[in-house]
Amino acid sequence: MMIVMRQGATEDEIAHVIGRIEAAGAQAHPSRGEFVTVIGAIGDDREMIAGLSLEGEAGVEKVVPILKPYKLVSREFHSEDAVLEIRGRKIGGDNFCLIAGPCTVETREQTLVTARAMKEAGAAMLRGGAFKPRTSPYSFQGLGEPALEILVEAREETGLPIVTEVMTVAQIPAVLEVADVVQVGARNTQNFDLLRELGQAGIPVLLKRGMATTIEELLLSAEYIAAEGNEKIILCERGIRTFENATRSTLDLSAVPVVKQKSRLPMIVDPSHAMGTRDLILPMARAAVVAGADGLIVEAHPSPETALCDGPQAIYVDQMNAWVADVRRCVDLMGKVMAGGEPAEVGV
Amino acid sequence: MMIVMRQGATEDEIAHVIGRIEAAGAQAHPSRGEFVTVIGAIGDDREMIAGLSLEGEAGVEKVVPILKPYKLVSREFHSEDAVLEIRGRKIGGDNFCLIAGPCTVETREQTLVTARAMKEAGAAMLRGGAFKPRTSPYSFQGLGEPALEILVEAREETGLPIVTEVMTVAQIPAVLEVADVVQVGARNTQNFDLLRELGQAGIPVLLKRGMATTIEELLLSAEYIAAEGNEKIILCERGIRTFENATRSTLDLSAVPVVKQKSRLPMIVDPSHAMGTRDLILPMARAAVVAGADGLIVEAHPSPETALCDGPQAIYVDQMNAWVADVRRCVDLMGKVMAGGEPAEVGV
Amino acid sequence: MMIVMRQGATEDEIAHVIGRIEAAGAQAHPSRGEFVTVIGAIGDDREMIAGLSLEGEAGVEKVVPILKPYKLVSREFHSEDAVLEIRGRKIGGDNFCLIAGPCTVETREQTLVTARAMKEAGAAMLRGGAFKPRTSPYSFQGLGEPALEILVEAREETGLPIVTEVMTVAQIPAVLEVADVVQVGARNTQNFDLLRELGQAGIPVLLKRGMATTIEELLLSAEYIAAEGNEKIILCERGIRTFENATRSTLDLSAVPVVKQKSRLPMIVDPSHAMGTRDLILPMARAAVVAGADGLIVEAHPSPETALCDGPQAIYVDQMNAWVADVRRCVDLMGKVMAGGEPAEVGV
Amino acid sequence: MMIVMRQGATEDEIAHVIGRIEAAGAQAHPSRGEFVTVIGAIGDDREMIAGLSLEGEAGVEKVVPILKPYKLVSREFHSEDAVLEIRGRKIGGDNFCLIAGPCTVETREQTLVTARAMKEAGAAMLRGGAFKPRTSPYSFQGLGEPALEILVEAREETGLPIVTEVMTVAQIPAVLEVADVVQVGARNTQNFDLLRELGQAGIPVLLKRGMATTIEELLLSAEYIAAEGNEKIILCERGIRTFENATRSTLDLSAVPVVKQKSRLPMIVDPSHAMGTRDLILPMARAAVVAGADGLIVEAHPSPETALCDGPQAIYVDQMNAWVADVRRCVDLMGKVMAGGEPAEVGV
Repeated sequence: MMIVMRQGATEDEIAHVIGRIEAAGAQAHPSRGEFVTVIGAIGDDREMIAGLSLEGEAGVEKVVPILKPYKLVSREFHSEDAVLEIRGRKIGGDNFCLIAGPCTVETREQTLVTARAMKEAGAAMLRGGAFKPRTSPYSFQGLGEPALEILVEAREETGLPIVTEVMTVAQIPAVLEVADVVQVGARNTQNFDLLRELGQAGIPVLLKRGMATTIEELLLSAEYIAAEGNEKIILCERGIRTFENATRSTLDLSAVPVVKQKSRLPMIVDPSHAMGTRDLILPMARAAVVAGADGLIVEAHPSPETALCDGPQAIYVDQMNAWVADVRRCVDLMGKVMAGGEPAEVGV
Repeated sequence: MMIVMRQGATEDEIAHVIGRIEAAGAQAHPSRGEFVTVIGAIGDDREMIAGLSLEGEAGVEKVVPILKPYKLVSREFHSEDAVLEIRGRKIGGDNFCLIAGPCTVETREQTLVTARAMKEAGAAMLRGGAFKPRTSPYSFQGLGEPALEILVEAREETGLPIVTEVMTVAQIPAVLEVADVVQVGARNTQNFDLLRELGQAGIPVLLKRGMATTIEELLLSAEYIAAEGNEKIILCERGIRTFENATRSTLDLSAVPVVKQKSRLPMIVDPSHAMGTRDLILPMARAAVVAGADGLIVEAHPSPETALCDGPQAIYVDQMNAWVADVRRCVDLMGKVMAGGEPAEVGV
Repeated sequence: MMIVMRQGATEDEIAHVIGRIEAAGAQAHPSRGEFVTVIGAIGDDREMIAGLSLEGEAGVEKVVPILKPYKLVSREFHSEDAVLEIRGRKIGGDNFCLIAGPCTVETREQTLVTARAMKEAGAAMLRGGAFKPRTSPYSFQGLGEPALEILVEAREETGLPIVTEVMTVAQIPAVLEVADVVQVGARNTQNFDLLRELGQAGIPVLLKRGMATTIEELLLSAEYIAAEGNEKIILCERGIRTFENATRSTLDLSAVPVVKQKSRLPMIVDPSHAMGTRDLILPMARAAVVAGADGLIVEAHPSPETALCDGPQAIYVDQMNAWVADVRRCVDLMGKVMAGGEPAEVGV
Repeated sequence: MMIVMRQGATEDEIAHVIGRIEAAGAQAHPSRGEFVTVIGAIGDDREMIAGLSLEGEAGVEKVVPILKPYKLVSREFHSEDAVLEIRGRKIGGDNFCLIAGPCTVETREQTLVTARAMKEAGAAMLRGGAFKPRTSPYSFQGLGEPALEILVEAREETGLPIVTEVMTVAQIPAVLEVADVVQVGARNTQNFDLLRELGQAGIPVLLKRGMATTIEELLLSAEYIAAEGNEKIILCERGIRTFENATRSTLDLSAVPVVKQKSRLPMIVDPSHAMGTRDLILPMARAAVVAGADGLIVEAHPSPETALCDGPQAIYVDQMNAWVADVRRCVDLMGKVMAGGEPAEVGV
């Protein structure tokens, strides 16, 4: 941690800051420049920053942290890529994992039709929402627990592991009984109690980046889960909020290589929610793959125009084979292996 | 709801959209322009938009909602300002409500000293955090339930009603036992289950705007609470996330007059969290008052440099009298009455 | 300047960075921590950062500048508030300067009617656009040079100094002949050639903050003007671009106290362009005053509904007396004196 | 254009709006809903919106434009992809155009060495800055006209067409004498006079998106050029400004498919400026290609650590062959042909 003093800070102010650093058990190394003095505090930033409030001290211009604020999920702590395995499907390293399915479980029929098509197209896992966070209280909020039973039936038939969202601590027990991967949505990236509980549950967690969450904050949220002993974490970029409104969110694909530098955790991309309209999803899916993503999560529906949620961004189920074939060429180019069974033959 | 068709949309596409609108029980009014056709759908937008996914239909360029998506909290629904009363303190209308206290309850002593000073300075309510959402798992997370007992003691001594944050549904019962107003923080603005539960609890809710929440979304979150029968809602602007990093967040004071146009709910401002440093809080507090805010929520500490959380933005307890006196001049100018007892005499 | 080395940087990498700092004529002070090494470079950051590219060196994690990148416009360089005087109207220090007038000079009649009303209401200067930057090539682009003659006539009649925008270097000679203050608009904040030319011209410059300009960048743009020997600079906050679209831009009023800390230059606020609709301007104008602004620039029109540009945000000329009277109460509260003549008597 | 009236708008207000629409020569079609009235105005939005200011009229809630505000550059106006040809290099359609070279021309030697390497690696054009817009007045501002002569020498030797930036109208004559493509930088995207002059000059223009420019505004800026009769326009995404600071800007790759839907103009991507550090450029370059970009513009330097500008983001000249070979695989995958000569053989 470096403490930059204001131009004109007094000797007393400098001495007081040094005293506080030393009282906290760290070493203080002042450097006196022509204009300003900078005090290096040698010790563990993470503890020191939590403990001292030096920004508020007289004469202090700013405090610059040196060490990264997260540790367990950092590349420095574990240098090799983490590889998770979920019912035989690998994610991370040289594996590419496609997660696909309905935004929301609406009916048994719609879910099973979609699940079979996803399996056939080459998806490794099935996504499907039972509990849906909706901006308006007047929108469809998901079927709830009955949806979980439908997902289990889909898994039994197709063998695809289930990824489903949990919105609250209270939903965890029901979701844990059926889910293979628990998704934390963009509005819950900093729902710290939820993260802690999922850390203790020990289940694989798909952690989405929030609309106003920095990459550093996303890694800190992952650290919440890891700090409870659960390092089975998959990060997910799904778009951030910016001034541009031609798309629903701005997909920050650079988050993928940035996270890869800073952390060993796998990172996937959700182009469906970021774009909001069907035609834009394929180009962004391809882009995500060659930017280095470890997978994709996308939405499909047999008849999107009647979907109860996010229909405009759902891929038509009967176009999924061709869609996956297109994306797969990028996966091949990256030298990665698609997790899961063999895809259907497609005449591309 | 208006459906704007693409330039070159076919008659079949237009007829199909009209058919879907009518099948949903609404009336369709097409207007054929020189370049494009626009179809007006007459009915209740809130239900129609929840039910149809016309953005995804062939030939549709965009869908423009006409009615506001919220209803109960809208100015159209109730035209008069809502005025809440909490242990005799009013908020809304011509009343101005200052909520002040520690960011976090750290010790009994620190809380009582602060509470007495807030009372003396003229605050109407006492804020104080028992449960703290923190970006890093290594930061102090609040004392939890013991803090609630300290807050009760502070209320008993000073008479100030208590405002304290609830982060999860599980914390609600404990918090309800002591709180007069329950605060929903910026990371939970769209924690819809929490909102629903607080709606059912019927307790006054201080709902903060999230860092990436639009004003419309904030009102929709309030609608979640109101839809459960609880209209005792106080909105709070606390800064949004932008590219500017000279301040912790960008305080969007224009949200105050915008909300006043659209809703009858009272709205207060939290300049402490938005600014992040002490010196900037007073000018922004004054600005909030004359922009029309119904109150302020600010943080104070006897020795901010040793605070366990957000020390750099805490006002010194012994400077609070002068601070409030400055703000009060703006309250007077707006012709509002400060809720709560008489302030201390200050030589300004 | 501090150079933070990566965790695991080699001794050779550290020695190479030290060598490059010393070769540039600065002193290098390495601090070796448990995890990382930080190298302080003692010298003038502004020259060093311009000359070295240490971020790209092997083993370097990041480079942290210590000194502010601007100098002439900084509070450290001159600690006292700058006060400009323009035809007897003061701006800065204890003076409050209201600049008002039409967005655009449309006709002689419209301009003179407006100018008289602004004078009567108590404005200190007259604004009016001759050259207008418009997002669309199909929008009215201003009358050009004939508008300048109309502004001169308005000044002759009312005595109000003229503030008018210059968009290009080529327009400077014509504008210099008539303008008392030259405005640089939000799209030209970083038009460095224009800034340099205005620096050389020596005329007072009203420099607006761009929609994506940080406060630090705004001060660096001011430094461009000052570096040519012209310190007659007035800064102006007019809203930044964020995700919120309830208002045209998000007015960042905290820029006012932030700039006051960092610089001695006067700063005014343009609530008209930030809000985009008439009803929101007065509350934000009041807020700007008590946040510490040295003035306001606002738009007025005799019949806004027929204005050729930005009509929805123009104040009705015949409501200007009451409008100014409301704002003046905030000016009085701040203990400032309104520059310019006596206002009309208003029954408020 | 649709005019949405407020709930409770009077018949007089509605009639007044209808009258103003008809007076402007358009047809008014009111639709009266249960809650609000919407008035369709049939005519050319672009002229009507330029002429009326209905947002300011009593009883008007909002005005919704229906037609796109640009015309000449729209996909509706010309449905086929535009293909430009510059000294035999094609851009647009099935062609992929790599533009590479130094950020800034520093010396004859550095420029020639870089130009030869770019040619060898397979670039189609040479970039190089003579005039540099720099945030700080203390940074290197470019060599100016002498740099143009060096670029000409590089073109004579390598045959690569020259892309170079013009910052002001005054620089146009000198730049036009040597440039094959004139670049308009991100700070000048809305420098409308510059755009108009380049429109009249008739030279190919590489128009970068500004840091706060929406896609619609970018297309309107292109319309400024096209309206002068010059449709030789190449658009360029180079990152927008958001809250994320792990990268220099946030590269909005979704702008590529969005622009492809709305316009026939070619669009390229500049990953160098968006990322700001070398390691992140290759993944984002690959991503840009498969998102559908018509080309890339990147920076290279023989010894980036001594570069006078933006060294940390320059690719090492001697790594360029491998770099291009990697990107070329994505170009092949998209079925596009790299414009320009044969690349060097690379052992990948």
